Amino acid sequence: MTETIAAISTPAGEGGIAVIRISGADSIETTDRIFSFKGKLADVATHTVHYGHIVHPSNGERVEEVLVTVMRGPRSFTTEDVVEISCHGGIISVKKVLGLVLEQGVRLAEPGEFTKRAFLNGRIDLTQAEAVIDLIRAKSDRAFKIALKQVEGNLSKQVKELRHRLVELMAHIEVNIDYPEHDVEELTNAYIKDKCANAILDLDRLLLSAEQGKILREGIVTAIVGRPNVGKSSLLNALAQDNKAIVTDIPGTTRDVIEEYVNLNGIPLKLLDTAGLRETEDIVERIGVERSRNALTDADLILLVINRNEPLHEDEKLLMEQVKDKQSIVVLNKSDLPTAADLSYMEARFPPERIVPMSVKENEGLDRLGEAIANLFFGGQLETNDITYVSNVRHIHLLNNAKRALEEAQNAADQFVPIDMIQIDIRNAWENLGELVGDSVGESLIDQIFSQFCLGK
Amino acid sequence: MTETIAAISTPAGEGGIAVIRISGADSIETTDRIFSFKGKLADVATHTVHYGHIVHPSNGERVEEVLVTVMRGPRSFTTEDVVEISCHGGIISVKKVLGLVLEQGVRLAEPGEFTKRAFLNGRIDLTQAEAVIDLIRAKSDRAFKIALKQVEGNLSKQVKELRHRLVELMAHIEVNIDYPEHDVEELTNAYIKDKCANAILDLDRLLLSAEQGKILREGIVTAIVGRPNVGKSSLLNALAQDNKAIVTDIPGTTRDVIEEYVNLNGIPLKLLDTAGLRETEDIVERIGVERSRNALTDADLILLVINRNEPLHEDEKLLMEQVKDKQSIVVLNKSDLPTAADLSYMEARFPPERIVPMSVKENEGLDRLGEAIANLFFGGQLETNDITYVSNVRHIHLLNNAKRALEEAQNAADQFVPIDMIQIDIRNAWENLGELVGDSVGESLIDQIFSQFCLGK
Repeated sequence: MTETIAAISTPAGEGGIAVIRISGADSIETTDRIFSFKGKLADVATHTVHYGHIVHPSNGERVEEVLVTVMRGPRSFTTEDVVEISCHGGIISVKKVLGLVLEQGVRLAEPGEFTKRAFLNGRIDLTQAEAVIDLIRAKSDRAFKIALKQVEGNLSKQVKELRHRLVELMAHIEVNIDYPEHDVEELTNAYIKDKCANAILDLDRLLLSAEQGKILREGIVTAIVGRPNVGKSSLLNALAQDNKAIVTDIPGTTRDVIEEYVNLNGIPLKLLDTAGLRETEDIVERIGVERSRNALTDADLILLVINRNEPLHEDEKLLMEQVKDKQSIVVLNKSDLPTAADLSYMEARFPPERIVPMSVKENEGLDRLGEAIANLFFGGQLETNDITYVSNVRHIHLLNNAKRALEEAQNAADQFVPIDMIQIDIRNAWENLGELVGDSVGESLIDQIFSQFCLGK
Repeated sequence: MTETIAAISTPAGEGGIAVIRISGADSIETTDRIFSFKGKLADVATHTVHYGHIVHPSNGERVEEVLVTVMRGPRSFTTEDVVEISCHGGIISVKKVLGLVLEQGVRLAEPGEFTKRAFLNGRIDLTQAEAVIDLIRAKSDRAFKIALKQVEGNLSKQVKELRHRLVELMAHIEVNIDYPEHDVEELTNAYIKDKCANAILDLDRLLLSAEQGKILREGIVTAIVGRPNVGKSSLLNALAQDNKAIVTDIPGTTRDVIEEYVNLNGIPLKLLDTAGLRETEDIVERIGVERSRNALTDADLILLVINRNEPLHEDEKLLMEQVKDKQSIVVLNKSDLPTAADLSYMEARFPPERIVPMSVKENEGLDRLGEAIANLFFGGQLETNDITYVSNVRHIHLLNNAKRALEEAQNAADQFVPIDMIQIDIRNAWENLGELVGDSVGESLIDQIFSQFCLGK
């Protein structure tokens, strides 16, 4: 792993600045060959910025006007020598400069390879590395906050502390195996059960956060269903509008992002099939309830929009039957108008906290809808400050493995199984937690994890 | 103009790095309030980079892990104190950090405002500032090279030298007006005519490059027309394929960019209505020749694709009549198959250099097509190294104004018009050239120029 690598680290597109990052033992020497300024980068202090030109090494022709930053290892993102070339934004500029860097024998970095090096060089552990991509992909403030805490080692710290306790337990057992004459087996069994129970409690606490963490990270997959003309697309627009207000200060934010994800009181909703809803009501009419039915199977949350001002339609009664046992909320729209719908019918099927009166047109009730969703998914509590959320499927899987192994150790201790057998279960738990923080993971898993990254990170 | 401004300077989207740029007298002090590291930015040396955290000033809560670069004026892009905050890429991160910066009383920068300050503070002149956005928007290597030369002051230098000569001429005339007793009017007239002729020669040289410069900057608007199934979409794919190979090493490059602009032998083609061509041939069939006809009016270049293997259709004969007097090339496709088309018909209407045999399927003839286009638009010559290209419509307009004014001065001198009248024409030329480099431009024009920039530059 001594190759020097380079990639464009900023998103593609038009912008004021584009950054090319180079990492590895040759990064400074390589840049010196194509960077013209008063001096040599080899001589400059670390963490300094230099104005000059990228020039073609063969003929000295100026290729671009740049700022070059030198960060010598180990005080860098990868712990290796890192050079960042900041060029004018735009596609051609980065293409030309990166091309010239690669011509000097530097290899194009794979997705996530800079972060992978930070991990392999021991600067961060695997959960921290994984959280870096969560930071970038975060779709809501809360998801970002969770990821940042994980980048800072919040989860690692707790897992490492747990592992430390398991190592102590294993040491204790080891003494017993090596010196059986001590004959403290019964005491040891009680000790094992006690320690395992404690560790399981901590694992449960982490796993308890998993569902919420996953939702906060990935968003609640939400379907808006209902008959034509009840206000589905208006509700979508109201949700998106709120979100637009948040993101319009970011230039170039794509409509896709805005439309797919919305934030309601800090809860990220991932809206299903928004394109369909955005069609004119005519087209929705044609596709009708059929489309809604398909959405029901994919969604974590169903918002069933009803027009309070009209009698319930048979289709709506059917939809209610279909969604009442799922995570669903009835949006009682047009609440500014007189009631014609049979409220008792829906009240017989939905508890009051899952029926939300709204007037989308009058922009009333969005907050109430947010509260109802928070209630449904978080029991009303939505607090990210003190909790360590586990949101990564890989982590959840390993925590569950560790928990199961410790439960087996408990049972074995109950049944006075020989302690060297129990030792195997505990070691199993310890290894699963090790895999979580990356202490004992195979190369293929590492490759798989980092391949999900974006280029340049 | 003492307000401190801030903006996101990297393109929106997922990437490894996002940069927020702050410029103005308060930029360092403001960042100190929300940046936690060992020390104070107010104390650090210029052009240094510091690792730390953006924190909420009220409760110290960590908002993001960042690198902060300090560049004190006048050694900065704007000549003011500049701070660049490099965060993890992604939308939420930059939104949170920028939000916190703006809460400290910093104003969101307008598009191009950083470059505008560089201009207003005298670091660069107007043509250099205008070229900055050309650099970012450049769609081909040649366009980029032209813009870079302009950023470096290539055009300014020539215009300023011209202005200097006009000032000398005006001084000479001034002496004559002030001391008429010298009675060297006739000599002065000859002198004026000589100087004007020289200046006009230089202006002509610049204007000569204008058409090519504009094409290199903006691309040749190209329509691919022809009957269904002659290979139009294959030609489009072949052109785009070539281009894809160039840009695929840039992550996240949007399909839009790839499809709209292609480079053929370094010549940027801006393809018209590629969406239409990409439809199945069925749909093209329906829209048929009608669509092609519309394209004819908008295009700088028309590529008429003919299937050599079939007899000419009446529609094709009609199309040939319509395009033969325009900048057009007949692409004689399927040249690997026997000839069935009436070649003499097209040879009677197009010179040989505008008939290009190709086999798109066999990937043959693309180079020849590139040569034919270069021949049509650049007389075969395509050299950007030594020429100062004028590519900006505003510049072309002002150069033409200056030229006209000098021609009037020449005529006036011919007719022995009083030299104080001639002086007015020369001053007119001098002022037009001044407006070009930004010496004498109004605020509204400046606003208009910089409003075309992207945010964060």
